[in-house]
Amino acid sequence: MQVTTEHLNLDYSFQGLSADELQAYAKKRLPANFNEQRKLLLQGEYQNPSEGRKVTHVLNRSRHSVVAAGGGRNRFSEIVRLLRSGKWLGATGKPITDVVNIGVGGSDLGPMMGSFALHEFADDNVEHELDVHFVSSMDGGQLYAVLPIIDPETTVFIIASKSFGTIDTLANAETVKRWVESVLDQSAWLEKHVIGVSSNNQAMTEFGIPASQQLSFADSVGGRYSLWSAIGLPIALTVGANQFAKMLEGARHMDEHFGSAPLLENIPLLLALLGVYNREERGLNNVAVLPYDGRLRYLPNYLQQLDMESNGKQQNLAGEAIDYPTGPIIWGGFGPNGQHAFFQHLHQGYDKFAADFVAVLRRQAPGFAAPVQAGLASQQRLSVANCLAHRRLMWFGNGDSYPGQHPSNLLYVDELTPQSFGALIAAYEHKVFSQGVIWNINSFDQPGVELGKNVAKEVLAVMNGAVETTTETAFDESTDSIIKRM
Amino acid sequence: MQVTTEHLNLDYSFQGLSADELQAYAKKRLPANFNEQRKLLLQGEYQNPSEGRKVTHVLNRSRHSVVAAGGGRNRFSEIVRLLRSGKWLGATGKPITDVVNIGVGGSDLGPMMGSFALHEFADDNVEHELDVHFVSSMDGGQLYAVLPIIDPETTVFIIASKSFGTIDTLANAETVKRWVESVLDQSAWLEKHVIGVSSNNQAMTEFGIPASQQLSFADSVGGRYSLWSAIGLPIALTVGANQFAKMLEGARHMDEHFGSAPLLENIPLLLALLGVYNREERGLNNVAVLPYDGRLRYLPNYLQQLDMESNGKQQNLAGEAIDYPTGPIIWGGFGPNGQHAFFQHLHQGYDKFAADFVAVLRRQAPGFAAPVQAGLASQQRLSVANCLAHRRLMWFGNGDSYPGQHPSNLLYVDELTPQSFGALIAAYEHKVFSQGVIWNINSFDQPGVELGKNVAKEVLAVMNGAVETTTETAFDESTDSIIKRM
Repeated sequence: MQVTTEHLNLDYSFQGLSADELQAYAKKRLPANFNEQRKLLLQGEYQNPSEGRKVTHVLNRSRHSVVAAGGGRNRFSEIVRLLRSGKWLGATGKPITDVVNIGVGGSDLGPMMGSFALHEFADDNVEHELDVHFVSSMDGGQLYAVLPIIDPETTVFIIASKSFGTIDTLANAETVKRWVESVLDQSAWLEKHVIGVSSNNQAMTEFGIPASQQLSFADSVGGRYSLWSAIGLPIALTVGANQFAKMLEGARHMDEHFGSAPLLENIPLLLALLGVYNREERGLNNVAVLPYDGRLRYLPNYLQQLDMESNGKQQNLAGEAIDYPTGPIIWGGFGPNGQHAFFQHLHQGYDKFAADFVAVLRRQAPGFAAPVQAGLASQQRLSVANCLAHRRLMWFGNGDSYPGQHPSNLLYVDELTPQSFGALIAAYEHKVFSQGVIWNINSFDQPGVELGKNVAKEVLAVMNGAVETTTETAFDESTDSIIKRM
Repeated sequence: MQVTTEHLNLDYSFQGLSADELQAYAKKRLPANFNEQRKLLLQGEYQNPSEGRKVTHVLNRSRHSVVAAGGGRNRFSEIVRLLRSGKWLGATGKPITDVVNIGVGGSDLGPMMGSFALHEFADDNVEHELDVHFVSSMDGGQLYAVLPIIDPETTVFIIASKSFGTIDTLANAETVKRWVESVLDQSAWLEKHVIGVSSNNQAMTEFGIPASQQLSFADSVGGRYSLWSAIGLPIALTVGANQFAKMLEGARHMDEHFGSAPLLENIPLLLALLGVYNREERGLNNVAVLPYDGRLRYLPNYLQQLDMESNGKQQNLAGEAIDYPTGPIIWGGFGPNGQHAFFQHLHQGYDKFAADFVAVLRRQAPGFAAPVQAGLASQQRLSVANCLAHRRLMWFGNGDSYPGQHPSNLLYVDELTPQSFGALIAAYEHKVFSQGVIWNINSFDQPGVELGKNVAKEVLAVMNGAVETTTETAFDESTDSIIKRM
């Protein structure tokens, strides 16, 4: 039960469903308008009703691509070229050596995962070292580590926020501003050291970012679907605009596959149906995502946002409360290390789960001497062997103590490339979309996130003394006592 | 419902259990011999029946401490002193600037978490930069990134493996050996550049590690409980032996607390009972661990091993099959970033869960200018405010769409210090131990891990052609086809 495409393959043999059973289940579970909805998505015409706009991230892989066609010039490609070639000079005339991406959620997880996964594909014709750092956490935790190793004169900061109002990002930017001011005038800093990426140009202008350093993307691109847009700048800075375009190409290829392949050969649709089956028929509330190639280490974190923020919903498209299961809990981690951590539980714990194994069959090691290359190649084989073995054990079990019967997918590629990476991520996007259609929910809003932001503001106001503590502003005994202790 | 101790505090107000209910539940659920078992653990006399040995990690905090008492000298402290002072010279006479810890599971998660969390407490009287790197993954993924930035002449490798037979670790060590050989003779490398940490001295000697560079720890210390032993060397190299001793002191303090505090003031015991209650009475199969201080970013990964490998069991102490729930799935991640990823699901998804919030109320920012310090202090406050707010929202909910009633703990400290860090980790160890006693399982073996190692060997043998593929050695259609494709 294998599906092979140019860039991505799926083996779902260990799901325990025959082709006939899957066909029957699809007939039962796929809504009558599924094909129509899918077509709308792929055309950039699908509706996000609660936010009153279309859903257009797919177009970032084709006619909305940020990469200038045919090697031409546009703002995105030009910024990438200047920074990667060392020709972007800071306010004091020094070439830029470090870029810090300040963003969180969709403005962090995708860019970080992509930069980390594709690092070795850097398309480099220049002898210029450019280090890309990521700062996301509202507590400033990463600034403690990054600020001491960078120099205001040779660092460019990307401030990436769809709304340009994300408090985590603005708080980090504010601390950076304080850190810079002993070395550079604020106006010089803004002019030569800050790039904004947002769908809110006005807010970027108000922040003081010059128009030529504002990269925008459409409001109709959801944050967690935005790595294909200008939000992907850190990936392009790591690997170059050409390799970034190849990532888009792989995703576009998956779009075409999703739009045209019949059910039993359609990777995203199979992933979606198998996931719904495991959720509804087998009662599995969680999926362990287990990449077996270190470059895909951040995939589980990325999928947590993609899947749980999209489909962790209990209201339908019409905004009415529902009470049937929707998207599961996504967890997991790098597989081989998991074997020394949580696999004991997977093999022998009480809980049922589904798993997605992700494997890369071969890896090149350019730049290393032949004996080291041979060592690394044998390590890659070791890792794939462990993937196959644990996948077998989870399904077939082993005697009474290991019952097995934990269903899993194996997503695999011959080699990880920008194309296969793009195809993998797009396949998951379309899986999540398909499940959202099946469950009749809006996969493109996040009301719980918005609510969380509001309640946090109330607590912060009291904590900072901006609101006086009275019986009316009191929260509860526990919360109040901790605020007091601070 | 707060418990405060010198180094760690617990607020369990949002568990929804009164003191009386908890007392009654403890009466029902704590076995008659609990106090006796606890005493045995704290004395290093508790039995691990399946492996036929005692459990002695607690003694690493007291009379088995690796740190020489009163600032005296022993092998561990001497190695730390030499490396941190720059007085350890490599085979070609250059001072060591980089240390690479090669280990996985317990030989990686604890040392990495501790080094990362306590970095700023480095006890430095010397002007010597020592970078500590971690290489754990069997696919060599980290070597691709680390090897290009280190120099064989100025790097020491720690090979850390309890059995000294862990294939992940030996595979990484083998590739490193190949990488070194173009620069250094193997004997020179072993003599000046390799430290072994293991409970198997013979294997370290066979590997060629000089006796003076072998650090051993007792066979009775489980891998996932070993960061207090010589396995913690990377932490000591990061912060110095004195600060490492303070971490042990914090853990020892928690040992005393666990051994003597009455139920309603006993942090580990409360954590254990509340966890069992959530598992058995509320049917919650998972716990989201949500640190709100970036330094504790690796805590969820660490707890996955500590908890899931210890208590993800379906056989009792006598080795008989059981069918009641034991340890839950542990997942989660850095809280504020989770707010932009999986919190939508936590607030509004279908699934029930329990959560552990972990907060640090204040953080110093030594080494930064005053305005930056103020910025970072306000970011810490922002993070705590978000922690308190989301904790409230998860418990109290918000209208019909957000039912709340997700029980949570809040573990908090005024400041993160080596002592409070040690106390926090020891509290979790004792929680896991107490639950193991309640469930009548052995929290100190890992049969599923051992089984996984064996099945992986079979697949690797076929993949490498060491075993001929016949109908007898064939696995299954899916596995065989992927092996063939490789």
